[in-house]
Amino acid sequence: MWLSTAAKGMWPFVVVFVCQLVTSSSATNPCCSYPCQNDGMCMTTGHDTYMCDCSNMDFYGDHCEHPTLMKRIKTWLRPDTETTHYLLVEPKYKWIWNIVNNLTFLSRRIMKVIYMLRADVLDSPPIYNSAHSYVTLDAAFNRSLYSRILPPVPEECPTPMGTKGPKELPDVDLLIKKFFTRTKFLPEPTGSNVLFSYFAQHFTHMFFKTDFQKGPGFQWGNHGVDMSNVYGKDKAAENRLRSFKGGKFKMQLVKGEEYPLPVSKTGAEMVYPKHVREEHKYALGHSLFGLLPGLFVYSTVWMREHNRVCGILAKTHPEWDDERLFQTGKLIILGETIKIVIEDYVQHLSSYNYQLLFVPDVLFGEPFQYQNRIAAEFNHLYHWHPLMPTNFNISGTVYELKDYMFHSELVIKHGFANVLDSMIKQRAGLMSHHNHGPGTLHVLRDSIIHQRQLRFQSLNNYRKRFNLAPYTTFEELTGETVMAAELEKLYHDVDAVEMYVGMIVEKRRHRAMFGSSVIEIGGPNSVKGLMSNYICSPQYWKPSTFGGEVGFDIVNTASMQKLFCQNIKGKCPVVSFRVPDYDENETIETWDGKLPHDEL
Amino acid sequence: MWLSTAAKGMWPFVVVFVCQLVTSSSATNPCCSYPCQNDGMCMTTGHDTYMCDCSNMDFYGDHCEHPTLMKRIKTWLRPDTETTHYLLVEPKYKWIWNIVNNLTFLSRRIMKVIYMLRADVLDSPPIYNSAHSYVTLDAAFNRSLYSRILPPVPEECPTPMGTKGPKELPDVDLLIKKFFTRTKFLPEPTGSNVLFSYFAQHFTHMFFKTDFQKGPGFQWGNHGVDMSNVYGKDKAAENRLRSFKGGKFKMQLVKGEEYPLPVSKTGAEMVYPKHVREEHKYALGHSLFGLLPGLFVYSTVWMREHNRVCGILAKTHPEWDDERLFQTGKLIILGETIKIVIEDYVQHLSSYNYQLLFVPDVLFGEPFQYQNRIAAEFNHLYHWHPLMPTNFNISGTVYELKDYMFHSELVIKHGFANVLDSMIKQRAGLMSHHNHGPGTLHVLRDSIIHQRQLRFQSLNNYRKRFNLAPYTTFEELTGETVMAAELEKLYHDVDAVEMYVGMIVEKRRHRAMFGSSVIEIGGPNSVKGLMSNYICSPQYWKPSTFGGEVGFDIVNTASMQKLFCQNIKGKCPVVSFRVPDYDENETIETWDGKLPHDEL
Repeated sequence: MWLSTAAKGMWPFVVVFVCQLVTSSSATNPCCSYPCQNDGMCMTTGHDTYMCDCSNMDFYGDHCEHPTLMKRIKTWLRPDTETTHYLLVEPKYKWIWNIVNNLTFLSRRIMKVIYMLRADVLDSPPIYNSAHSYVTLDAAFNRSLYSRILPPVPEECPTPMGTKGPKELPDVDLLIKKFFTRTKFLPEPTGSNVLFSYFAQHFTHMFFKTDFQKGPGFQWGNHGVDMSNVYGKDKAAENRLRSFKGGKFKMQLVKGEEYPLPVSKTGAEMVYPKHVREEHKYALGHSLFGLLPGLFVYSTVWMREHNRVCGILAKTHPEWDDERLFQTGKLIILGETIKIVIEDYVQHLSSYNYQLLFVPDVLFGEPFQYQNRIAAEFNHLYHWHPLMPTNFNISGTVYELKDYMFHSELVIKHGFANVLDSMIKQRAGLMSHHNHGPGTLHVLRDSIIHQRQLRFQSLNNYRKRFNLAPYTTFEELTGETVMAAELEKLYHDVDAVEMYVGMIVEKRRHRAMFGSSVIEIGGPNSVKGLMSNYICSPQYWKPSTFGGEVGFDIVNTASMQKLFCQNIKGKCPVVSFRVPDYDENETIETWDGKLPHDEL
Repeated sequence: MWLSTAAKGMWPFVVVFVCQLVTSSSATNPCCSYPCQNDGMCMTTGHDTYMCDCSNMDFYGDHCEHPTLMKRIKTWLRPDTETTHYLLVEPKYKWIWNIVNNLTFLSRRIMKVIYMLRADVLDSPPIYNSAHSYVTLDAAFNRSLYSRILPPVPEECPTPMGTKGPKELPDVDLLIKKFFTRTKFLPEPTGSNVLFSYFAQHFTHMFFKTDFQKGPGFQWGNHGVDMSNVYGKDKAAENRLRSFKGGKFKMQLVKGEEYPLPVSKTGAEMVYPKHVREEHKYALGHSLFGLLPGLFVYSTVWMREHNRVCGILAKTHPEWDDERLFQTGKLIILGETIKIVIEDYVQHLSSYNYQLLFVPDVLFGEPFQYQNRIAAEFNHLYHWHPLMPTNFNISGTVYELKDYMFHSELVIKHGFANVLDSMIKQRAGLMSHHNHGPGTLHVLRDSIIHQRQLRFQSLNNYRKRFNLAPYTTFEELTGETVMAAELEKLYHDVDAVEMYVGMIVEKRRHRAMFGSSVIEIGGPNSVKGLMSNYICSPQYWKPSTFGGEVGFDIVNTASMQKLFCQNIKGKCPVVSFRVPDYDENETIETWDGKLPHDEL
């Protein structure tokens, strides 16, 4: 199979193993079959030869298939991902975690390991974007594109997934009909509520900002947690929301509570359909957040929190002007956000009994890169529309989507506390197959089409990239037989299943919200994105950055509960991402196991 | 002096020392006097109180004045900067370095220490920009501004330098007349030639890109070594220069050698005055590089080198298309550039007997940030216009500036090899006082005005920031008495001397091109900018990134000599940054020691 082998150490301390290999098929790019193992770099060396570059890796050999001794030991010592997950979520081991959670030293050690292991999987700086199927300088310098975790499948490959599967991928509408469309609402089995769904949406839209006009590979954001979802996309947008007094946002008082102002009073650039009344077009940090009242709730509460924090800062710092109060308030709000995302939001979605911590200082002195890029795959993986219920219940009134969308005023009408309470009580949907509500099917459709335009590699390639065993059969992927059989008809080979489609039909992990792929591919992107934030670097992470001990304490003690209850009039409910009446032993409704027979 | 002290460890492993301090003057921001030592962060805590935040530092105490035990030991073990410099440049120690240079292991260890020590001094990610005198989130996220090494002096401070010096800084024109204007050409004493000056200019203009329309704090570049000086500022500019054949640039053959095409044949956006003939308006990577024939020489040689490399790549990779050859060629050219900058250019300007190395792999696994920001101070520090001679000698013809500027065609007229030979033979100017040629005085003037608008801190503050002893007297700064006396009249206090002015009047270091400030402040910025380049990261730094061993070898063996001699027709001279007839014991012309008497 191989022509010649030359494993030479050309550079001291850089282990370079290269070889010339020739494939049996001489017609196509031999790298289309992804012959290099363990993320070794495949490079053609002629029309039908290739090499695997294993430089700077823990593997060597013609195909980077042999782990080094150190890697072997590490692998042997480290429990596999499924075992780790089981240990973390299984109630019978809860007592261990109760002890760990109370031992600060141990708990911080574990958190450091989680940060490092998760972040290490990703390339930072990034080496790929959607413009090329190989390493370019542009991938690192051009910030107007999403990065790529795996490069696009080369155009010249025989099939869209390289060499496996059909020459043409299954019809999108057929896929949607068979595997995605919600027939009845399936509730999220770990008890997640609508407050959780909206948190995901409100939070992630500060960095998932596709520039559709340029193409699905382009983006217009800052590649990270920059709070543009609250403050606006740039300085001009920010200024339109500011009062320029005491560092605060310009807001209106309605029934004794602060609310965002209408667009007409701010000049903010917002997207609203024509039918929305002028006074109901609220000016928010993100131009699209008028879309759903839940996003209005989060926008409002963060604006109130900013104003509350500025009030505290102004008392501590009577000598500070509006600008400094504003800038420092923003730093505190960002700190609070990351604290809440890790300790409330990710805590909830992980289902771990181990209590996650936001402790940036454990990474000081480590080879950790304080920079981030949003990967196109992370964006698509985060399309969690099944979380959204079909109808929305506010204090007993059930709203159809059409009466709910672009009706932020419902929050004022029903009262902030009541709406919050309703969001806590309403169950989110199961993030899986047969549970995409009718309102978001067009987004799903576009998303799959874009993934194909971006030539995403197969789910199994992504699994290998994130140290997961690739699925060997369709049954193993779905954990059942009906969809498995149908998928096999459409994709022929389990190695050809598309990333997102595969993630949706994937069997759910033990006591988890998702299958293993979403967790193990999303996790590193999430942890890296949060902990690599500039404010987590030693230069930023100190009291003076946040206006002193008072501000630093606000960051270090932030929680969902406080975020809402310190900014609400009237009785504050128990703020949780889980419905209050959740019974973990409940029998939940699941897919009926049937597929529509007829083709489209 | 202090009101209360509370040194509390509020966060495990984060050493937080804060205290409330009160100054004697209650009228102004107490941080204006820069009371915190060792780069501790000064924050007001009321109208006349402040604290020094020493978190994450090797110092503690009310003013971060006490080094930790570990820091004490480190300081004791490490020779001071002046001694280190002396050891590195003094001929009598050359034999030590000859041995070191031949011991790869040792030499690489030293290089690693240099990389780490130099880069460690800078904040990466950055925490300041010119928009605020305190830490903001914008400093890290907003890439349209230069970063700042030290924040601007707060607007409310009593003097432009804080509390020291006059309320109004000396008249710019007076300063220029007294300390800057060249009366006779002073040659660079270490023998640097014009080839060196142009290298500095051609290289640095890929990242010093002030957006003057927005203001002197703004910039429009990529904050690093991105080769936009050769390839163009963006994809559109790049495409205008490409042939789309074999990865190569579109060039014209004149007398058997490749030259850039005229603008008219490319559509490139170049800045030329009206009087320049259409066929002499050449299309280059940087819109301003038509300015000087020396920049045309470098632009041309890099374009030729790119085409040469693409030719080699095409032979190794007959299967690659134009795009891949181009992209990989660009990566190689970038790699060659950094290699040459470190091993030829910085080597020359350092005057070290130790041979510098470009060995990115020594940093793998270290807490080194592969990200860079160009600081406004670095830009101004790099205003090395005195290097430029007053007239330009090409093969015996002496050109006045007016006949030389915007006359790239002179290179073709005289022949590439002859022009190169002349650039090697002509001496550069001494980068010091009384040596700014008439052609660049307006740039100097703007530069000083901009530094004032940007409220740069004093030279002494920058010296402290870079672990240099601040000057205690004007004589110590200048190393003489005439300028010292005049400067004292103008600035009153040596702590009030402006950064750039101070650097220019500063006494030259032993056997060096500059004073210690330029070296010790510029050095870290330079090393960090080079080694934090994306291609130096473990993800990029492997043969396959550069098209395999052939390309990687081109990068790892690049030199000035090869750059020119592999791309030149006819006899190639010995390519050096030093004039060939340089005698290190020569008596060189120096400033006559007189200042103009009359005020302006």
